[in-house]
Amino acid sequence: MLGKKLREVLGSEKVKDSQSWRLSYAYDGTPTGYRGVPDVVVFPETTEDVAKILAFASEEGIPVYPRGAGSGLTGGAAPLEGGIVVSTEKMNSIVEIDEDNLGVLVEPGVVTYDLQVEVEKRGLFYPPDPSSYKYSTIGGNIAENAGGPRCVKYGVTKDYVMQLEVVFADGTVAKVGSKAVKSVAGYNLKDLIVGSEGTLAFITKAYLKLIPKPEAVRTALAVFPKVEQAAQAVADMFKAKVIPTACEFLDKNSIVAVERYAKIGLPTYAEGLLIIEVDGYEAVVDELISRAVEVCKAAGAEEIKTAATKQEREALWMARRAVSPAIVQLKPKKINEDVVVPRSRIPELIKNVYRIADKYNLMVVNFGHAGDGNIHVNFMYEPHEADRVEQAVREVFELTVALEGSISGEHGIGWMKKEFLPLEVGPALEKMKAVKRALDPKNILNPGKVFDL
Amino acid sequence: MLGKKLREVLGSEKVKDSQSWRLSYAYDGTPTGYRGVPDVVVFPETTEDVAKILAFASEEGIPVYPRGAGSGLTGGAAPLEGGIVVSTEKMNSIVEIDEDNLGVLVEPGVVTYDLQVEVEKRGLFYPPDPSSYKYSTIGGNIAENAGGPRCVKYGVTKDYVMQLEVVFADGTVAKVGSKAVKSVAGYNLKDLIVGSEGTLAFITKAYLKLIPKPEAVRTALAVFPKVEQAAQAVADMFKAKVIPTACEFLDKNSIVAVERYAKIGLPTYAEGLLIIEVDGYEAVVDELISRAVEVCKAAGAEEIKTAATKQEREALWMARRAVSPAIVQLKPKKINEDVVVPRSRIPELIKNVYRIADKYNLMVVNFGHAGDGNIHVNFMYEPHEADRVEQAVREVFELTVALEGSISGEHGIGWMKKEFLPLEVGPALEKMKAVKRALDPKNILNPGKVFDL
Ligand SMILES: Cc1cc2nc3c(=O)[nH]c(=O)nc-3n(C[C@H](O)[C@H](O)[C@H](O)COP(=O)(O)OP(=O)(O)OC[C@H]3O[C@@H](n4cnc5c(N)ncnc54)[C@H](O)[C@@H]3O)c2cc1C
Ligand SMILES: Cc1cc2nc3c(=O)[nH]c(=O)nc-3n(C[C@H](O)[C@H](O)[C@H](O)COP(=O)(O)OP(=O)(O)OC[C@H]3O[C@@H](n4cnc5c(N)ncnc54)[C@H](O)[C@@H]3O)c2cc1C
Repeated sequence: MLGKKLREVLGSEKVKDSQSWRLSYAYDGTPTGYRGVPDVVVFPETTEDVAKILAFASEEGIPVYPRGAGSGLTGGAAPLEGGIVVSTEKMNSIVEIDEDNLGVLVEPGVVTYDLQVEVEKRGLFYPPDPSSYKYSTIGGNIAENAGGPRCVKYGVTKDYVMQLEVVFADGTVAKVGSKAVKSVAGYNLKDLIVGSEGTLAFITKAYLKLIPKPEAVRTALAVFPKVEQAAQAVADMFKAKVIPTACEFLDKNSIVAVERYAKIGLPTYAEGLLIIEVDGYEAVVDELISRAVEVCKAAGAEEIKTAATKQEREALWMARRAVSPAIVQLKPKKINEDVVVPRSRIPELIKNVYRIADKYNLMVVNFGHAGDGNIHVNFMYEPHEADRVEQAVREVFELTVALEGSISGEHGIGWMKKEFLPLEVGPALEKMKAVKRALDPKNILNPGKVFDL
Repeated sequence: MLGKKLREVLGSEKVKDSQSWRLSYAYDGTPTGYRGVPDVVVFPETTEDVAKILAFASEEGIPVYPRGAGSGLTGGAAPLEGGIVVSTEKMNSIVEIDEDNLGVLVEPGVVTYDLQVEVEKRGLFYPPDPSSYKYSTIGGNIAENAGGPRCVKYGVTKDYVMQLEVVFADGTVAKVGSKAVKSVAGYNLKDLIVGSEGTLAFITKAYLKLIPKPEAVRTALAVFPKVEQAAQAVADMFKAKVIPTACEFLDKNSIVAVERYAKIGLPTYAEGLLIIEVDGYEAVVDELISRAVEVCKAAGAEEIKTAATKQEREALWMARRAVSPAIVQLKPKKINEDVVVPRSRIPELIKNVYRIADKYNLMVVNFGHAGDGNIHVNFMYEPHEADRVEQAVREVFELTVALEGSISGEHGIGWMKKEFLPLEVGPALEKMKAVKRALDPKNILNPGKVFDL
């Protein structure tokens, strides 16, 4: 029996295979129920433990499913058929904060928020901020190349990963990347592994880049009668040399849902709302936020509020934070797509998403990271509408690809989106498969995710 | 004969195989003479041309050497044994500047400088600035992941490559990466190909990210009696929340050589000199440069000059720009290593480089991008000292790896450094080879570069 063998490999406290453990690790954050139940769940404490597990699994040809907090939205951490779930829950220490080099060495199970709090105590800053940051892990963030509102200015998780210690499928432990700021020695396996959703290597340590914490922040909220005006404001912002820290968008349905849910006084006639945040040196944030306000006015904004104190800022952000809880009140089921287009294509994207929703007679809510062109398209539906939703989703993906965008801005492919991947990547898919076969010839690392071999 | 066959494939104007053509393309910027002469040099004009060449070469098992301007310093574009040099000289148009999305689509043969000039006309900015920018090509920059002084603030070439059109070894044309700001759809082949020195795919088009041109620039030059003081100032700069655009370092031998060569009044007693540049919004650059000056004073700088106008700035930069021409006056031969360490290790690096130079009784000159920890270690020598230089270089690499650094910050591995690559990457080397075999099973793309299979 698998559990017995793994106890021999790891010692018994690190191995769980009772029915309740197995069921608890059959899920992740994807709202689809479970697909497969693992045979066993293991809790390695060291890199050596992970190396032993992978060497064993490779030897025996058993699937291994790396798992952080299980907050993924595309089924990445969920087992498809038996095998071993390897949880990083017990590998969760912040090993060293290197203030001289603005870096931090962490184990993969560290929670994003815990890391942020620790480094901020020292005046430092770890920008990547997926909305799940209170519970998602750094390992999961790296494996998904997670983004968040701040990524428009600061970039995504990849931009903060300098070096990884990883275990390859055959149990080889290696470092990829460098603690030095630049390195062009050999192939960039580091950025290949970031975002590979646990299919190419198991991350056991990460050395992350930090930056000085920005001195000051300003926030504005602008309401636009027409959705095109909001999109125009986003494009013009960059032309006015304002690179916002965040530039979040809500469409009409989001605004109405939030207002109904939270009653914060949003004008429900509006087709678009932007929350714009800027940060940087004290000497410049006031100027930046006034430029942003000017841009919004010129684009046609009718109401604009600004905030300087933390409290005022929180009030403006309420509009954005309330979206998720508000929209789930609209219908019993939702499917959340995470498409991204070049910024100038946002109006086309939204117009056509509405057209698709009309065509299939579905309710759709759009919001997200407009500064990145990353829009979360949410179809809200009754169970009996599921078929129509499926067709609408495929059309949204086709539309996105036609607009030279990407079918996933930050949630990854997992098993949920793998049928759509060829739409976007075309002939590169075969090359991705070749890379997978090269690094995991027995296909044991998270098999069935991203694509089928 | 190869030339004849290629004429059939491409038409005769694009194929050159006279002795003089072949000899002219046997070299690159590496100061070692040539190793092998190509059988033929071809000048494709389109992606289809490149696809035909690669399909043909793959079929026949013939080495293909991609070539931009041939300014590489590690022998990347130089053929090792016969085969086809594929020059991008005729693929040099700027296809489209997309001002709305801050992006530009270029062919690989576009010269870095030409691109910078074109985008700056529109108030935009392409930061990567290898010192060879006046003649190096974007294709070569991407294949080497080139850096430059501005990279400390703005990042390296990789950070500006959004999407590539590439031809794989078997002639498959594919796009990798996305025109959208974020994308996590499938494996990140884009960042794998960037920096792969023409060994994994031929780049036929690049969609590059631009940023708004900074409004203002300020520059300072600071002279330090002790080298440790200069290194301290670099570390403290970041703590004072000044992320300089450039932070260039000259050691004592560089200062003396420059002063002898250019007579610009540098104090030759000094062990370290920093040129610090900041840029950004008008409202903030004065404050930033005064913070930088304060940091230098506190670290022990004895003379500090600042510059605001373009002319004054050029005068300060003279000290840095004169280094290369100045030091070649010192000895008939030089070998330029391009090591990089975490910033805090710079003093250790420099101290030990001096120790190694003493041990082998060699003259050494150190300068470079201190803000990145990227120091160019130049041994200056007489031809008869070559053996000792070789031993010293190996020790410098061992030292660099011991300091958790990288043996190449920006010049790549090529064939010049491949014997040292295992020192740094260890067990990851086998995985790099597996990737190479997966994407180029016949080993036709730039064989013998980065590593031997
Ligand atoms: C409410 C909510 C909001 C969200 N908002 C965002 C958002 O704004 N931006 C965003 O990008 N995502 C968001 N997500 C998605 C999710 O939180 C992220 O993908 C997150 O990075 C997953 O981290 P995790 O620790 O939960 O990983 P898991 O879900 O456990 O795993 C995710 C993937 O990573 C792999 N993995 C985990 N650990 C390792 C490791 N050590 N080595 C190798 N592979 C590993 C798994 O196999 C799986 O494929 C959100 C999710 C929820 C539920
Ligand atoms: C004086 C001087 C100063 C320099 N300063 C710097 C510096 O500050 N920073 C820095 O990073 N480098 C520097 N370099 C090194 C060099 O200029 C860079 O590596 C540059 O990027 C090379 O560009 P290139 O067009 O000359 O490429 P080449 O030398 O022609 O080729 C370089 C590599 O790229 C490959 N390649 C070229 N085009 C393609 C393509 N289309 N597809 C696939 N592969 C391709 C080649 O096969 C080769 O491996 C300097 C060189 C000199 C001579």
